[in-house]
Amino acid sequence: MRPYDLIRKKRDGGVLQPAELEFLVQGATDGSVADEQLAAFLMAVFFRGMDPVRELPAWLQAMLRSGQVVDLSRIPGRKVDKHSTGGVGDKISLPLAPLAAVCGIRVPMVSGRGLGHTGGTLDKLESIPGFRVDLPIERFVQLVDSLGLCLIGQTAEIAPADRKLYALRDATATIESVPLIASSILSKKLAEGIDALVLDVKVGRGAFMKTLPDARLLARTLIDLCRAMGRRCTALVTAMDAPLGFAVGNAVEVAESIEVLRGQGPEDVRELTLQLGVEMLLLGEAAPDAPSARRRLEGALADGSALRRFAQIVAAQGGDAAVVDDPRRLPRPSAVREVRLDRGGVLAGLDAEQVGLAAVELGAGRTRKEDRVDPAAGVLLRKRRGDEVRAGEVLAELHASDAARLDAGEARLRAAVALSDEPPLAQPLVLERLL
Amino acid sequence: MRPYDLIRKKRDGGVLQPAELEFLVQGATDGSVADEQLAAFLMAVFFRGMDPVRELPAWLQAMLRSGQVVDLSRIPGRKVDKHSTGGVGDKISLPLAPLAAVCGIRVPMVSGRGLGHTGGTLDKLESIPGFRVDLPIERFVQLVDSLGLCLIGQTAEIAPADRKLYALRDATATIESVPLIASSILSKKLAEGIDALVLDVKVGRGAFMKTLPDARLLARTLIDLCRAMGRRCTALVTAMDAPLGFAVGNAVEVAESIEVLRGQGPEDVRELTLQLGVEMLLLGEAAPDAPSARRRLEGALADGSALRRFAQIVAAQGGDAAVVDDPRRLPRPSAVREVRLDRGGVLAGLDAEQVGLAAVELGAGRTRKEDRVDPAAGVLLRKRRGDEVRAGEVLAELHASDAARLDAGEARLRAAVALSDEPPLAQPLVLERLL
Repeated sequence: MRPYDLIRKKRDGGVLQPAELEFLVQGATDGSVADEQLAAFLMAVFFRGMDPVRELPAWLQAMLRSGQVVDLSRIPGRKVDKHSTGGVGDKISLPLAPLAAVCGIRVPMVSGRGLGHTGGTLDKLESIPGFRVDLPIERFVQLVDSLGLCLIGQTAEIAPADRKLYALRDATATIESVPLIASSILSKKLAEGIDALVLDVKVGRGAFMKTLPDARLLARTLIDLCRAMGRRCTALVTAMDAPLGFAVGNAVEVAESIEVLRGQGPEDVRELTLQLGVEMLLLGEAAPDAPSARRRLEGALADGSALRRFAQIVAAQGGDAAVVDDPRRLPRPSAVREVRLDRGGVLAGLDAEQVGLAAVELGAGRTRKEDRVDPAAGVLLRKRRGDEVRAGEVLAELHASDAARLDAGEARLRAAVALSDEPPLAQPLVLERLL
Repeated sequence: MRPYDLIRKKRDGGVLQPAELEFLVQGATDGSVADEQLAAFLMAVFFRGMDPVRELPAWLQAMLRSGQVVDLSRIPGRKVDKHSTGGVGDKISLPLAPLAAVCGIRVPMVSGRGLGHTGGTLDKLESIPGFRVDLPIERFVQLVDSLGLCLIGQTAEIAPADRKLYALRDATATIESVPLIASSILSKKLAEGIDALVLDVKVGRGAFMKTLPDARLLARTLIDLCRAMGRRCTALVTAMDAPLGFAVGNAVEVAESIEVLRGQGPEDVRELTLQLGVEMLLLGEAAPDAPSARRRLEGALADGSALRRFAQIVAAQGGDAAVVDDPRRLPRPSAVREVRLDRGGVLAGLDAEQVGLAAVELGAGRTRKEDRVDPAAGVLLRKRRGDEVRAGEVLAELHASDAARLDAGEARLRAAVALSDEPPLAQPLVLERLL
């Protein structure tokens, strides 16, 4: 088999055989197919796509085979994870994982880091002093067994082909391909040893997918691929035009997550946590129907059991569990600034992408993979989309390490604001539910 | 400037600025843009093309700037070259260069080697004992001045960006892109310091371009690009369904070229040599019109002056000029086989690609760049398309170094044959003339 022939076949719109896809994935993993050939193949896939039945499952299977697939079969109960395609202020995994666990689901969660304007679960968790996301797989399995959840990062053993291919795509402008996105996501998620997956496919200005048809296509591709691999899957397509909640950053988002686990917190964060939780419980057969699933989840927020489970996993992963009772123990910024608007109006829009970039400027995110994040940096909004803001009133509080970063963050934040005389149309949070 | 942004721009159908194209070509030459990024860009160009006015001339200009452009300005007279897009049995350069030179044109010819089923002028020339194609540029200039022609291979100094990009395209299935083909050809040809170029764009089973519209598009792109670079250009689109002449190989093609220079040889080889010669003389202003150009060329074949010029350049480039009078001094095969058909009929087709591949199997060509060619190997046809062949009559003579190669070559040659009860439709040799 020659890489040339496979590139050419894809370039000309042909359908590759499973053995041919396996050859390329294996070649990416062991270096036997040259980077330039992989890059050309990936660009050909960008233009030609992959057949969802004849190619994509085989491609994903080969990616899974390139590394370790965690075996959770000896742990009783359904293993269900949630994956979000990435948004701004999207801290849902933090309250959701312990909440689902306490309701009887096993949540083996392997998450990623922030890149660009979107945050990453690992960065948020690491803002809790001492929290370790690099546990060995044995410990991961142990905690999923004993506490019902564990929150770690991708290990070297999980889907090495994806790490290689993702790095190439990132360098060669071939990220934006639905089959490549779908197979990349699932190569990591299915390696966790899950039975089912709930997807939160974001759509809007702060999301990867800017339009509903694009988001729907990605959701459909992910669901079908998940099913082809023998896993159950449900997707919610949710709005990401403005940030989720009030907090955008790392420590600030942990604090907001704790509020949600206390049964409080911003309405949208709480609601999305509950709706995604309902899907997890249904897929995991921990509730007979949606209303009873929701009641169970609300109960676990109200009685403090979800919060306690969060404290337990924080402690088990080396973190300071006392943050749960005293969020002031989280890293605090050395420079704070209140941002006020010099004219009033209705906050018709608060562009999630710009707010996300403001957080990056403040130090909460990365522009390059090797950048370090400042756990204390971020944006704490005082107003949200649809609110009325008076001239001189505080719109947001910015957290950073110095004034230069505050300046840069403030400029970005101001670029996010759209004022109007009239209130914006109400937007639903969950736009579609796909099975 | 980031390679990522330029790949993305091309991927999304944008038009790159001259400075952006220059950045990529420079990065290919000095290694500062990674191979995988160049490969992704080239695949994006395969799908998106290049703007013939806003992109392609700047891209070519950057490729020319990557290396040396020979300065022939101190040599009086018009410098005109001929380029063929490659065919089977296409030895036209060998008789044409000395013929045009003796008629007053300066022919600074930098040629290539055979790859795949098509032959290369350098391999043919090197079958003449002692012939050197790796002369230094100073000697090249000297011979163009004194003898009116010189026939060499691409030096390390000529268009290094093209060498790099061509190797990448060859590995990544991005050869078949009209703008990339056109810029690659002209990056070498314009580096010769020519004033004008005659193109022989082949079309048919044995050609790179299989259909007339494809060939016409390539011809048009080449002509427009040549003009944009301030050079005159004419193209003939010529048939390449069956081999040109009777000889396909190296020494056998040199011998056939000598016949043409003697005023004899196969009618199609002679005719195409003359028609391309007419175009060279017209572009080089060595004749006022086509009829007088043709008369002059026919005269130089009839009076032996073209043959003598060929002998002079062979000697000047270190070769055994006595082959001109005694072609038996050319390398001779150690194994020869006559191929006969076991049933008779009209030779309705003789697939040029298969005949070319037969020559490769016999040892005359390369399947990989690093292969050595056998100068004595090749096919000597006894019959041509349209001829009647009786059962048991010799179709061709095969030349090789051993019986195994003869077997492989014979199988390929037999695959080239299509017999019929009726004579095939006559096909014109020159299909179109584009200005």
